[in-house]
Amino acid sequence: VILVDGTQRESVSARDRGLAYGDGVFRTLLGRDGVLLHWSRHYAKLAADCAALGITCPEEPMLRREANAVAGAAGEHAIKMIVTRGAGERGYSYAPGAVPTRIVLAEPLREGHARGRSGVHVRTCRLRLSRQPALAGIKHLNRLENVLARAEWNDPRIAEGLMMDGGGDLIGGTMTNLFIVTAGRLATPLLTQCGVEGVTRERVIALAAKEGIECREQAIAPADLAGADEVFLVNSLAGLWPVCAWETRRWRAGPLSSFIQQWLDEDDGQVD
Amino acid sequence: VILVDGTQRESVSARDRGLAYGDGVFRTLLGRDGVLLHWSRHYAKLAADCAALGITCPEEPMLRREANAVAGAAGEHAIKMIVTRGAGERGYSYAPGAVPTRIVLAEPLREGHARGRSGVHVRTCRLRLSRQPALAGIKHLNRLENVLARAEWNDPRIAEGLMMDGGGDLIGGTMTNLFIVTAGRLATPLLTQCGVEGVTRERVIALAAKEGIECREQAIAPADLAGADEVFLVNSLAGLWPVCAWETRRWRAGPLSSFIQQWLDEDDGQVD
Repeated sequence: VILVDGTQRESVSARDRGLAYGDGVFRTLLGRDGVLLHWSRHYAKLAADCAALGITCPEEPMLRREANAVAGAAGEHAIKMIVTRGAGERGYSYAPGAVPTRIVLAEPLREGHARGRSGVHVRTCRLRLSRQPALAGIKHLNRLENVLARAEWNDPRIAEGLMMDGGGDLIGGTMTNLFIVTAGRLATPLLTQCGVEGVTRERVIALAAKEGIECREQAIAPADLAGADEVFLVNSLAGLWPVCAWETRRWRAGPLSSFIQQWLDEDDGQVD
Repeated sequence: VILVDGTQRESVSARDRGLAYGDGVFRTLLGRDGVLLHWSRHYAKLAADCAALGITCPEEPMLRREANAVAGAAGEHAIKMIVTRGAGERGYSYAPGAVPTRIVLAEPLREGHARGRSGVHVRTCRLRLSRQPALAGIKHLNRLENVLARAEWNDPRIAEGLMMDGGGDLIGGTMTNLFIVTAGRLATPLLTQCGVEGVTRERVIALAAKEGIECREQAIAPADLAGADEVFLVNSLAGLWPVCAWETRRWRAGPLSSFIQQWLDEDDGQVD
C-alpha cells in the first residue's frame, strides 16, 4: 500500500526533486499490529532532517494518520516515509514556498531481520563514505554510496557490510548503526562527517545514560573493533543484531548485547 | 513534454530507485530547431555513467528518437534525460536484471543563458564538495550538495557559485565546469575526487588539443583563479560564460575565451 500526498496511488511526478536530485529525506519504522513503534522519535528525526535541508515537514498528525493507514491493524510491516522538496522547474534552485511531496508505504517485514537476532556475519566494504558535515547524520535521499557498498556482495550468509569513511574510521553498516563494547563500556561512531543517525542508535544511547553505562560517540578504527568484547548492529526494523563474525574475528553474543536487545524488544516507544 | 519509458505521461513509480536513493544518472543537452546538439557525446557520457553504476543504459536509437520527439521541430529547448535503476523492492540491494526507467523531457531555454554570454558575476559557495572517487565525474542523481550550494544566494545578478572540495581546491560551478587561462595556457579542475564531467568541458579539452593550446586537468586553488588572465564557465545549455567578477577580482572577456566561445557556438556536433 502506498499513499502519495495522502492519496492511494503508485506514482509521483516525473518532475519531483526527490527524483531529480535526491532532494528529500526518509525514515523507516516498524508497524506491529496497528502500533507505530517509536513514532515520536521517528517523526522528530524526520522533522529535524527536513529542517536541515529547508524542507517543510508535513504536520505530525497527518503523517501519523497516513502511516497508521498503510500499517493496517495486524502483522509486522516496514513503514517507509519519504518527504521530498516537491515537484519543481529544472535547475538546482527552488522557490521558498515549494510544496513537499510525502510518500508513505508499508511492506511486510522480511524474515531476515528476525534471523539476525542470534548473530550475524559481516564484511568490510571497499567503498569509503565521503565526509560531508553539511549532510552528516541526515537520512537524505542521496544514498548511492549505500547502494554501491551493498552491491559489493551477494552471499546471503553475509547480513551486513561495515563502511569506513575516507580516513579509515568505521561509520556503520549500509543500513545499520554500529556499537562496540569494550571493558563494559559502549562506543558508537561519531556521525559528524558522514553516516545516518538512526532512531535505534538514539534509543541505545538514551538507555545507556539511564542505566549508568558509559557510552561514547567517538572515532572507531578497525583495530578498536577487533579488540572489542562485543559488537552489535541496530536499526528500527531489526532491533539488535549481535555480530558473531567479521574478517577472522569471532564473537559470542555477550551480556551487554543481550541486555540491550531484550530492552529494545520490550520497549515499543508508546510512552515516549 | 515528458516521456517516461517512451510513453507520454507525467509520473514515475513511487517505488523508483531514482527517487528512493538517487540511484540513477542524467544529462542535459540543447535542442535547436529539431537538432540535438552534440548528441553523440551526451549519449556516450550517459552510457559511461550508467556503466559505472551498473545500470543498463537504454539503446542509443531509442533514446535519440525520444529526445527528438520531446525537442520538437522548432525553437531552443533544454532536453533532460534521466536513467534510473528502475522500480524495486525497499532496500539498497538490487536484482541484476533490474529494468531501468528512462525519463526524457524538454523545457524552453531560459533567457539567462544567453545573457551570461557577455560576462557573469560569480560567488564562492560555503558548502564544500565531499571527495568520493567512486562517484567523481559521474552526473548521478545524488545532487544535494549542488542544491544546498545553489540555495546559498538568491541575488539574480550572481549567475553562478564556485564550489571547492574539502581540501580547498576549486572544482567548478554548481551547474558549470570551470576553466582558467594563465599566460596563454588553459587549465580546468581535475575531477577524480568530485565534480561532474560535462560534455562542453570535454569539447573544450578536445578543441585545445586540436589547436595546440596547452590544457591541463589539475588542482586549481583560489589563488590560481585570482592570478588568472581569463576565467570562464561552460555547460551544454549556456555554451561559454566569461567570468567578469569574482570576489574583489574583475576581468574583461579575453581573447582565448572569445575564441572558444565562438567555436563552441559554431560547432553543433553533427559531425561528431
